[in-house]
Amino acid sequence: MMMEGLFDSTDTICAISTAPGVGGIAVARISGAKALECVDKLWRGKPLAGVASHTAHLGTIIDPADGSVLDQGVATVFRGPNSFTGEDVVELSIHGSRWIQRQLISLLVAAGCRLANPGEFTRRAFLAGKLDLAEAEAVADLIASSSRASHRIAVSQMRGGISRKLDALRAELLDLASLLELELDFSEEEVEFASRQRLIELADEVHGELQRLGATFARGAAIKDGIPVAIVGRTNAGKSSLLNALLGDDRAIVSDIHGTTRDTIEETIELGDYLFRFIDTAGLRATDDSIERIGIERSRRAMQQARIIIAVIDATQPVDEELLAELAAAEAHVIYAINKTDCAPAPSLAVEQGSVVAISALNGQGIDELTDKMTALIAEEGSDDDVILTNARHAEAIAAATRSISATADALRSGIPADLVAQDLRETLHHLSAITGTISTPEILATIFSRFCVGK
Amino acid sequence: MMMEGLFDSTDTICAISTAPGVGGIAVARISGAKALECVDKLWRGKPLAGVASHTAHLGTIIDPADGSVLDQGVATVFRGPNSFTGEDVVELSIHGSRWIQRQLISLLVAAGCRLANPGEFTRRAFLAGKLDLAEAEAVADLIASSSRASHRIAVSQMRGGISRKLDALRAELLDLASLLELELDFSEEEVEFASRQRLIELADEVHGELQRLGATFARGAAIKDGIPVAIVGRTNAGKSSLLNALLGDDRAIVSDIHGTTRDTIEETIELGDYLFRFIDTAGLRATDDSIERIGIERSRRAMQQARIIIAVIDATQPVDEELLAELAAAEAHVIYAINKTDCAPAPSLAVEQGSVVAISALNGQGIDELTDKMTALIAEEGSDDDVILTNARHAEAIAAATRSISATADALRSGIPADLVAQDLRETLHHLSAITGTISTPEILATIFSRFCVGK
Repeated sequence: MMMEGLFDSTDTICAISTAPGVGGIAVARISGAKALECVDKLWRGKPLAGVASHTAHLGTIIDPADGSVLDQGVATVFRGPNSFTGEDVVELSIHGSRWIQRQLISLLVAAGCRLANPGEFTRRAFLAGKLDLAEAEAVADLIASSSRASHRIAVSQMRGGISRKLDALRAELLDLASLLELELDFSEEEVEFASRQRLIELADEVHGELQRLGATFARGAAIKDGIPVAIVGRTNAGKSSLLNALLGDDRAIVSDIHGTTRDTIEETIELGDYLFRFIDTAGLRATDDSIERIGIERSRRAMQQARIIIAVIDATQPVDEELLAELAAAEAHVIYAINKTDCAPAPSLAVEQGSVVAISALNGQGIDELTDKMTALIAEEGSDDDVILTNARHAEAIAAATRSISATADALRSGIPADLVAQDLRETLHHLSAITGTISTPEILATIFSRFCVGK
Repeated sequence: MMMEGLFDSTDTICAISTAPGVGGIAVARISGAKALECVDKLWRGKPLAGVASHTAHLGTIIDPADGSVLDQGVATVFRGPNSFTGEDVVELSIHGSRWIQRQLISLLVAAGCRLANPGEFTRRAFLAGKLDLAEAEAVADLIASSSRASHRIAVSQMRGGISRKLDALRAELLDLASLLELELDFSEEEVEFASRQRLIELADEVHGELQRLGATFARGAAIKDGIPVAIVGRTNAGKSSLLNALLGDDRAIVSDIHGTTRDTIEETIELGDYLFRFIDTAGLRATDDSIERIGIERSRRAMQQARIIIAVIDATQPVDEELLAELAAAEAHVIYAINKTDCAPAPSLAVEQGSVVAISALNGQGIDELTDKMTALIAEEGSDDDVILTNARHAEAIAAATRSISATADALRSGIPADLVAQDLRETLHHLSAITGTISTPEILATIFSRFCVGK
């Protein structure tokens, strides 16, 4: 059903599937028609070719070249099609030394396996129809997920959340298509008029749903990569102390998120269900005018990227009206953190009172209230049960589908003949199908699966 | 049979057994009487309490608190006593996100498991009589092994290599003991005379074997931790270039070996079957006399620690006779690497010709010959099939046993009565038994297993 792409899917492939490095155990995965045969060449124990599916066996792994023992281990056999890839799969659980892992892969390659490409196991699961493309992509997101919220979205997507939503949309589009067909068959005036109206309504409805879905991407991407937060304010207002207080509040610092660039990021912190990514706004130093300008420029860029802005206001200093004016115009959520309330009373600000928190970065007072406000702002943006886009490829396809269905609706309104309208409709369906992989090209597949880690 | 020590071995324990970090999959191990019951609280699929041993099952892991899905995974059940620990064991193979791993452990703890201490699974295997102590320690060595040779020694030890050797020695000591008993029973002159002679012979024999075994430790520890190599020579002779050439020759640089301190180490490189550890000798700068002295002092210390010294001799400079004299007195193997032979002919040195290699660190000439010589020197020190000590605890016990049997032999020679000799003999047996754990104390066990990684 699918085009083959860049890899030879008849090879038997192998890889270490567990995290790189030294561990108590490591697991090598072997998948393909010759999986059992290949492993049996290295295996001293019950021959795996003869064992039942879903059974585990203790044995010894040897180097067939000289009979030397590499390790004792457990082999678990999953016979196709009842396996992750749909092919015969062996999982070898071995002692997790770097040397044993490396050597085992060498022995498997010598026995006739090929080293798997990144994501190739999941790719085979997709080709075997075990997962659709959106579900397969969710596997990579799931592995990379680093907060409760990003994990929940990935699990929902892996279990077909997006796919079901798209199926529903496709069903509506097929309704549209059949009505168009009706119009083609009976091109009398009355029928056309009646069905045109219904057609336009349907197209507008799908358009609305696609727009809503597309709009979830900004939030989804923020949840997946870490919600960008800018801490702005004058030097000595306590920006760094606040960041330290937030870090101290929850020690779960995640510093190595895949795909994020370090140079513009200060810290990522898991607070509540979300991962927050603090955008570096260092440089707001008011020493003289030119440096001041650079600082303001940096601060402004950070505010544009942010989904939440925390404005740190020094209670012991006069209120900076210029900053407040700028914040009033910001698109992001703004929280006004009045700092140093252990030294001076909080000044009254002409802003929405729900957005103000009195804190002391020094003694930790108000920090919990601040983080509660941050997580509440994100939680209130949408329900966890909504289908949320987190994948740029999906967002692009949804945007393209939105444009096509908009063109369809326009065409219907301007009385263009049904056979020409059908063209736009086909395009909309095409874009939606590309997400789940019902329609896909080798290039798309190669791009998607190369983002995976080897062994998955 | 064993004392219980510091942990409660009736708890059901859990841990992530694979390497820390993000991977395609991760494996959590649960062991104990309530392993199946605990996992079943989180498991949606066939209840594990009812499945056969050594079978694998696909299912969903949920948070019982709110029914939310954590992951889809595979549970493999090993029922005691036919498991690694001898208890009921479940291995949960999950997606390897940091978040899922952390969350799964939290859920297992909430379900009644306790987080395992380092090495606690292997400790339970020992307590269940699945492994003796020397074999259990070899599991840790196996996981840490980073070269073919260190791996081979650990596999041999895990498969009972040392234990069999010690059994043989113990059998000889029991012979001795029974002869002593004979002497006690029949204390007539003739019997005593005849058996004393035989007793002394036997004691000397065991003493010789223990001495030989103890002497393997220096080599074993070097193979395990990396064979210490000092590259010495004048500045500009090409020491750094040589190190770079060696690194370039084989890219398998191992930089994070457990238990080695970084401050005195420059690089570790796997060459052939061995890991070599290059001792930093930087500082040999001949700018003025006092600095020169410091340099020589450092170089001398490096030479004392080294098992191999590579003396880099600059072919374009006059031969440094002082250095040659010092090297002639060194205990380590010395290889004379005549460098810059692409610029000048190699000078003739008054040393064993087999120890001289002409190289060019610049163009790589002779580097293969040099590494062949390094690995050959280590290989020639002993056979791979010998029992080799790599563990300081074992080496200390063997040294203590050697002293006791020496005292036994002395006592026998000086005609001391059999019942007093028996005391020394018991001590010898005690030291040997401590290695395999036939005799052990909670303190010894705690020390041994705390060296393990969690999850093993």
